[in-house]
Amino acid sequence: MSMSDASGTSGGRERLVVVGGDAAGMSAASQARRLKGPDELEIVAFERGHFTSYSACGIPYWVGGQVDDRDELIARTPEEHRSRGIDLRLRTEVVEIDVDRGRVRARDVDTGAEAWTSYDKLVIATGARPIRPDMPGAGAPGVHGVQTLDDGQELLDTLTRARGRRAVVVGAGYIGVEMAEALINRGYGVTVVNRGAEPMATLDPDMGRLVREAMEGMGITMVNDAEVTKILTGDDGRVRAVATEAAEYPADVVVLGIGVRPQTALARAAGLPLGERGGLLTDLAMRVRGHEDIWAGGDCVEVLDLVAGRERHVALGTHANKHGQVIGTNVGGGYATFPGVVGTAVSKVCDLEIARTGLREKDARRAGLRFETVTIESTSRAGYYPGASPMTVKMLAEQRTGRLLGVQIVGREGAGKRVDIAAVALTAGLTVEQMTALDLGYAPPFSPVWDPVLVAARKAAGKVRGASQGAPV
Amino acid sequence: MSMSDASGTSGGRERLVVVGGDAAGMSAASQARRLKGPDELEIVAFERGHFTSYSACGIPYWVGGQVDDRDELIARTPEEHRSRGIDLRLRTEVVEIDVDRGRVRARDVDTGAEAWTSYDKLVIATGARPIRPDMPGAGAPGVHGVQTLDDGQELLDTLTRARGRRAVVVGAGYIGVEMAEALINRGYGVTVVNRGAEPMATLDPDMGRLVREAMEGMGITMVNDAEVTKILTGDDGRVRAVATEAAEYPADVVVLGIGVRPQTALARAAGLPLGERGGLLTDLAMRVRGHEDIWAGGDCVEVLDLVAGRERHVALGTHANKHGQVIGTNVGGGYATFPGVVGTAVSKVCDLEIARTGLREKDARRAGLRFETVTIESTSRAGYYPGASPMTVKMLAEQRTGRLLGVQIVGREGAGKRVDIAAVALTAGLTVEQMTALDLGYAPPFSPVWDPVLVAARKAAGKVRGASQGAPV
Repeated sequence: MSMSDASGTSGGRERLVVVGGDAAGMSAASQARRLKGPDELEIVAFERGHFTSYSACGIPYWVGGQVDDRDELIARTPEEHRSRGIDLRLRTEVVEIDVDRGRVRARDVDTGAEAWTSYDKLVIATGARPIRPDMPGAGAPGVHGVQTLDDGQELLDTLTRARGRRAVVVGAGYIGVEMAEALINRGYGVTVVNRGAEPMATLDPDMGRLVREAMEGMGITMVNDAEVTKILTGDDGRVRAVATEAAEYPADVVVLGIGVRPQTALARAAGLPLGERGGLLTDLAMRVRGHEDIWAGGDCVEVLDLVAGRERHVALGTHANKHGQVIGTNVGGGYATFPGVVGTAVSKVCDLEIARTGLREKDARRAGLRFETVTIESTSRAGYYPGASPMTVKMLAEQRTGRLLGVQIVGREGAGKRVDIAAVALTAGLTVEQMTALDLGYAPPFSPVWDPVLVAARKAAGKVRGASQGAPV
Repeated sequence: MSMSDASGTSGGRERLVVVGGDAAGMSAASQARRLKGPDELEIVAFERGHFTSYSACGIPYWVGGQVDDRDELIARTPEEHRSRGIDLRLRTEVVEIDVDRGRVRARDVDTGAEAWTSYDKLVIATGARPIRPDMPGAGAPGVHGVQTLDDGQELLDTLTRARGRRAVVVGAGYIGVEMAEALINRGYGVTVVNRGAEPMATLDPDMGRLVREAMEGMGITMVNDAEVTKILTGDDGRVRAVATEAAEYPADVVVLGIGVRPQTALARAAGLPLGERGGLLTDLAMRVRGHEDIWAGGDCVEVLDLVAGRERHVALGTHANKHGQVIGTNVGGGYATFPGVVGTAVSKVCDLEIARTGLREKDARRAGLRFETVTIESTSRAGYYPGASPMTVKMLAEQRTGRLLGVQIVGREGAGKRVDIAAVALTAGLTVEQMTALDLGYAPPFSPVWDPVLVAARKAAGKVRGASQGAPV
């Protein structure tokens, strides 16, 4: 970075500074560039890593070998961004945001050199950081996070070199279960150590139990209700086991998938408003609250949960891309909003598909809602059609209004994306009674004559009515 | 049938008479029975065929060999219905409805004996009949419809006995394309002769073209813009070819899949109200308009198209089941309605998935709507994930309001059921702008980071706004 361009905005054009070069930041930059050319808007983007615009969600499949090449995960390279007139500075970390003077201080990661860059408009897209347990051995060689492409490469290097084939995954959320699959695909014996009573705490425990049983059926050792206390190393300093209070689990490699937190130390130091979960708070146009010229998006913000009526933190590439699109449109002089989320997530472990949207039971209680729950078993296709596989659908509906509150699905092929039906219904505020009449696609290779979501809706509607009309046809 | 029970209602209990023993009729009977026991409600159901409650939609897969046994298509046998206290009379055809005196005249198909049965409540569920072209040879051996299980058995017998392996399918709607797949699976060379410019007239022609190209790629000979004028027979009286004005197509077997019409001759003769397409007209509780004690449902009724705002005829098992459920609830003293359809349909031919919901361009014009259309290409999964397959999504949105009007999808695995997203959005009256923010399930094995439906919605929203914000990220 030269000092000359760091002094302030140049001429009549405005300068947009983007902090963080992944999905939200570079989507914002790209969209702003579409709306305003380089003669109107200068765009400077700082990214401390080596890569831009990559699919972090794809890392488990690269590690697992379904994706051959790291570069396939990169949607747009630094060169492509630069060719579109974005001044992208890799390996350059923003270390301070000076809101009063409208500037950021950035440091060259390799040389340590620092310089101030002023902005007219600022986009904060600093993402999330994985939770690293503060325990002995957590930093030992062979212990890996999987948040960035660099993390993924280091893990792959370990897998290639490891002498044994025993892996321990710490955490059983979606990263944990996806990494369990990846390690199985690499020929590892996998143990998942999980703090909760069941894996996938994003589901209610009764649905998490189905996930556990399926994972055990795949040969994965599931250790629940277990807190990791220590990571043990061998004489060579590398990881050799994971210890809980009760036991030790030998490990040639350990993957941490405990979850992530918004990476907002910079924003906090700058006095920007943070929510209960540590994420930046924005308005519906993704402007940081109280700051006309600062936007934030992606994994570093909290978003409105449209069902619960309060903010929550959801780290997902699909939201980050939407945020970037909204921010870029607004920065570029257009108008767009991100109304919020309903909490949809889908993942898989081997052939098991796991999906959820809306509120779990504990979310609904926390939101002050009273509700009915139903759980039904159905199949992905007509029962007589080849490949019909069982699926369990749990549905929550508000008492009195009958409004849909949430859906959880565990099943095989065809289960996961069915959650989209409920995601749209939640967005639209449909009642479960209204859902019973939904005109969903039906043909024997695609669905039973009553789609599993309809079966659940009928049962839920009956429960809300307090009627006892028996089992569905 | 004895004469004794035909004289009138017995004692204090009411008698429900059901005309037609498939999905709508028997669902209604079953649901009414759940709500009222035999001491309150007598239920008499007349069915002229041999079977009850079977999946007509499954017939192509039975013919194609994916389903081994006819009985797998039967959801509930006559014996099961009888064990639930339903007086089911097979091979007994209702030949007259006497609305004034509240009775039906039924004929034993085998003996020809007739008797009157009075009703307090009547359910008409006479289904649809396939359109049989009125042309020479249409009744020849080797020419088959596929509406009933009996039809399917006759076709299978022909396929077993046929000397050659050349099949002609007349019609390229969903029955036509599904039968094309079935015949390929049976080792036949298949020619589809189609009156329209492209197959699948339930799609716009530009999307139908994609279906044609895919079917040609499967080795199916597609003959479009061709009206069948004659079916030619050999010396043995069996079919030997199908003739159009322009050509002859040799055939060892011919399957007619031209479409169906409501089977409402009985209702018409009884003076009951029929719509423009010949289907019975009901209120939202599925009561025949103007008749307090007569209900109708399934393929013999017209339903409200919620997008176009007028009645249409849609023959689909999933609607018939819903109608039956609604009717049975109302007959049983409860309350339920069927608000209408948005026109969702999904089908497949080999690995090609074809889906639609809402209005085609010509439907929208007929409904007096002005609209924008967009068509996008995307993939079923993240582009880098194994098995990601291309998919084309066409979307129609109303001018000014931006309300979603319709979606058509053609693709491979994962394409078909995505139409449910649009089906729910249509039901809820969402705009394409609202749809851009839908919180749909995302993970690389399930979807690109922008789901194909979101990509289409973004493009459509841009077009509605009249903005030109370029291609989606």
